[in-house]
Amino acid sequence: MRYTVGIDFGTLSARGLLVRIGDGAEIASASFAYPHGVMDAALDAPGGKIPLPPDWALEHPADWIEALRHVVRALLDESGVSPSDVAALAVDSTTCTLLPIDAAGEPLCANERFSADPHAYAKLWKHHAAQPYANRINALARRRGEAWLAHYGGSIQSEWMLPKMLETLTEDPAVCEAAFAFADAADWLVFRLTGRLTRNSSIAGYKNIVPDGKTPLSDEFLAELHPALPALIREKLSAPILPVGSAAGPLTEEGAALTGLCPGTVIAAGNADAHVAPPSAKATRPGEMFAMMGTSTCMLVNAEEFIPVPGVCGIVKNGIVPGLWGYEAGLGCVGDAFARYADRHLPAAYAKEAAERGLHPIALLCEKMEKLAPGQSGLLALNWFNGNRCLLNDSELSGLIVGLTLSTRPEEIFRAIVEATAFGTRAIIENYRTHGVPVTSFTASGGIAQKNPAIMQIYADVLGMEIAVGSSKEGPALGSAIWAAAAAGEERGGYRDIYAASEVMGALSDKIYRPRAEYKETYDALYTDYLTLSDHFGRGGDDVMKRLLALKKAKSRA
Amino acid sequence: MRYTVGIDFGTLSARGLLVRIGDGAEIASASFAYPHGVMDAALDAPGGKIPLPPDWALEHPADWIEALRHVVRALLDESGVSPSDVAALAVDSTTCTLLPIDAAGEPLCANERFSADPHAYAKLWKHHAAQPYANRINALARRRGEAWLAHYGGSIQSEWMLPKMLETLTEDPAVCEAAFAFADAADWLVFRLTGRLTRNSSIAGYKNIVPDGKTPLSDEFLAELHPALPALIREKLSAPILPVGSAAGPLTEEGAALTGLCPGTVIAAGNADAHVAPPSAKATRPGEMFAMMGTSTCMLVNAEEFIPVPGVCGIVKNGIVPGLWGYEAGLGCVGDAFARYADRHLPAAYAKEAAERGLHPIALLCEKMEKLAPGQSGLLALNWFNGNRCLLNDSELSGLIVGLTLSTRPEEIFRAIVEATAFGTRAIIENYRTHGVPVTSFTASGGIAQKNPAIMQIYADVLGMEIAVGSSKEGPALGSAIWAAAAAGEERGGYRDIYAASEVMGALSDKIYRPRAEYKETYDALYTDYLTLSDHFGRGGDDVMKRLLALKKAKSRA
Repeated sequence: MRYTVGIDFGTLSARGLLVRIGDGAEIASASFAYPHGVMDAALDAPGGKIPLPPDWALEHPADWIEALRHVVRALLDESGVSPSDVAALAVDSTTCTLLPIDAAGEPLCANERFSADPHAYAKLWKHHAAQPYANRINALARRRGEAWLAHYGGSIQSEWMLPKMLETLTEDPAVCEAAFAFADAADWLVFRLTGRLTRNSSIAGYKNIVPDGKTPLSDEFLAELHPALPALIREKLSAPILPVGSAAGPLTEEGAALTGLCPGTVIAAGNADAHVAPPSAKATRPGEMFAMMGTSTCMLVNAEEFIPVPGVCGIVKNGIVPGLWGYEAGLGCVGDAFARYADRHLPAAYAKEAAERGLHPIALLCEKMEKLAPGQSGLLALNWFNGNRCLLNDSELSGLIVGLTLSTRPEEIFRAIVEATAFGTRAIIENYRTHGVPVTSFTASGGIAQKNPAIMQIYADVLGMEIAVGSSKEGPALGSAIWAAAAAGEERGGYRDIYAASEVMGALSDKIYRPRAEYKETYDALYTDYLTLSDHFGRGGDDVMKRLLALKKAKSRA
Repeated sequence: MRYTVGIDFGTLSARGLLVRIGDGAEIASASFAYPHGVMDAALDAPGGKIPLPPDWALEHPADWIEALRHVVRALLDESGVSPSDVAALAVDSTTCTLLPIDAAGEPLCANERFSADPHAYAKLWKHHAAQPYANRINALARRRGEAWLAHYGGSIQSEWMLPKMLETLTEDPAVCEAAFAFADAADWLVFRLTGRLTRNSSIAGYKNIVPDGKTPLSDEFLAELHPALPALIREKLSAPILPVGSAAGPLTEEGAALTGLCPGTVIAAGNADAHVAPPSAKATRPGEMFAMMGTSTCMLVNAEEFIPVPGVCGIVKNGIVPGLWGYEAGLGCVGDAFARYADRHLPAAYAKEAAERGLHPIALLCEKMEKLAPGQSGLLALNWFNGNRCLLNDSELSGLIVGLTLSTRPEEIFRAIVEATAFGTRAIIENYRTHGVPVTSFTASGGIAQKNPAIMQIYADVLGMEIAVGSSKEGPALGSAIWAAAAAGEERGGYRDIYAASEVMGALSDKIYRPRAEYKETYDALYTDYLTLSDHFGRGGDDVMKRLLALKKAKSRA
């Protein structure tokens, strides 16, 4: 019996699975919460806390090493599996979570000289302080008509590599000078395990603006942003890009000492935490859309060709599986919106009922909203409570709800929020189809998909598509374990490719959500109205959302 | 010392004041809740309950007689005032609250033959089952280009006399045949006290479509609605119209036996419950707007001329004070919206805090929203939670809120609702000004004005006007008492006219709400956006509200 290990490095913890290659059985699971957590108010430096400006979010890379050590050892202990039976290990992580490192692979923040320097720590994906740099980058790229814009819906986000790099270069050039390289979290972990610094086609494509895996950003473009930027990118962010699922190298002695695995164990190339997951639910072929539905929703689909679909997050060669173009889009706020309503706006009577019946507030709201027919509430919402991530790509948009009356009930509002996220999901799918990218099936994973049947049924009804659900509670960790089996290859007891690995090791739950024909007409009508509202408020018909946001910012500062 | 009595017949109870003529002091107050209340689910007939169709709302006129007896006697008892020192009595009531009566003045429903017949009871103002008849009436009036439409913003409401009459005539002609007359509640009470059936210029003008106090509806128009309608209106709804503030007659022996007052006491003409109130806050001159702010807001202002301002509820000669044109407009839902948010949507944590601190939930929300600066929430709402009563005159519109984010707090939503009602109020005022009807001051009365300083301050800031507040908690009852003093006239110890009476007997609180200059720019900007949203959703830019309502109705029936 042979096994692989997959570890998913999330925002607050790492979760790992030890999986049997022959059938994908999850033999053991383990997790580890990062001791420093997310540092967004203050940097927890050795000499004491250092306050951080607004919109900062840092992590301490030493936490990830601790997590790696703890999780692998716990998996081995719990399962009793011999390290020699572990064929391969793969890791995925949040991205772009970027850190400067020295030539030995040590994070700069571990160096005493930089231990009090916030720019020397890992800038977490949700570090949003680089927004002004992103704005400059987008403005310049549009002015120059940069060809790569067509791969990113016409703009890049503040979370990505280039704004973060430009921020560090501008605000703290000493860090850039001292760094041997900058690496995304997953690539750095692979470096620590293999001794070899690489990148991977997913993160490099989606976050480093290398959509075809090879063409670098032009020096002219970079130089216009900052004279030192071309050299910085060329010298310190240019590790070779491995297609996802490649073997990055064998585990070093040092890596073996850390993890308890055997030296020589195959280490797969790094990957992104959502993009790694489709094989966990067997959704890897062209047209098979995979949606990771959690606080936000990441929607992934593969196609043979590159078609410049507007409004997407990214279109990347080998971005999801080798050999295909991976299309990424998504909604910036899904489970977050449900949770926020339940946390902050749940009426007293509902809170009481939930407590008395031992139900989670969201479960109670789901139970009540399930009794409503589509259209019965008279409500319709726009789901932009955290801006619009895709199609309109506009962080200055906000949420809207229309149809409110004196008789509006809380579960009706909750249902309208759920439906709005489903309409937003449908809009992304229909946008693909309109532009010639087939979407033939819909498979979901993540907390919302696993825990909320009432929500998933609404999605099936709104999308007019069957929805299959991945059965693993840890889709990304299982995905990594499957990718590890592909990286190991048949010769080491794995599989010849990701398709073969996914077919055996991926797993779907028995439950399939089927669209109910009797609701089609109503949801088609509501969706048409959703699009009309969306166009009016999102495409310049009425820019009231932007004006309200500007006013809000001005008054909050005052 | 001489006194008057004013009694306000509301929806659920009658409230009376005994007032000293010389200074307006409220010597005694009393109230009486109607034993039958509002019968909207079932008619409480002598033989047992009879279910009512949706949208019905009836009252039992015997309740009002009980209230009249109880309240006048309680006022005399409590004050110790001798009945011979009461110069006059006036009553006002909800309207159009219409009942069929026999020649002796007995309600038809008191007759055994009709006691189980819903159409024989008083159809309360909020009986909305006549909506289909109102639609027919409006369509025909527009087709014929009826001149009176210009007095009613282009349409009449289902609550008014003609739809209710047409409903009775169509559905229950026996009631029309048996009736000696139909009367509005206040006029019927005056009939019972004086033995003389009259109407009054306010109710006849605003609810019976006699805007100039004399021109009847044309027989051709009425005949097209129903062949028997011209005769019915001519014969059974044609009592003489007295200008408000006239003496309708002396109290009869029978009326004296009922009330405990002396025979011969002056009984004033009837009046409507909002229209009677402006003298209570000295707001009776041209341009002095008076707003009765409660569950809904009724806005009244007088002008020398008739100008066909679009979107108003009614423009009536002698409608508010004798000799002037009374302009009525208003918002269908004000305190109702605040109360509904507090009742149904108040989050558990807020309910807990309110309970612990012994605060009414609305007081807690006011305290929290007061700390926000205008614009700080980033929210903007349309206040049409109960349709739009004026300007758009469209019951199929609904509420909207825009600017919602994950960080939106409950008090921000509450404030947005309050501000939306203030914007709606401002829109009505500016509509008057645009069309040449001066509005030079703003005086408020009613529960909202008296109890919620935070709300009133927002109104002052949004309107950009000072707001004075009537000091009586019972504006309509005090208004009736003042009108009674005018009806008594100088020769009986009252006043020569309503202006003189109001000047002495009306009273304002010391508190004046003044607009804060620093908020003007923000509220002007938000008001502009309010109008843009209002036009888009209310004037055909996007009829989504109507589609949502139609869907809601269809699905609720299913």
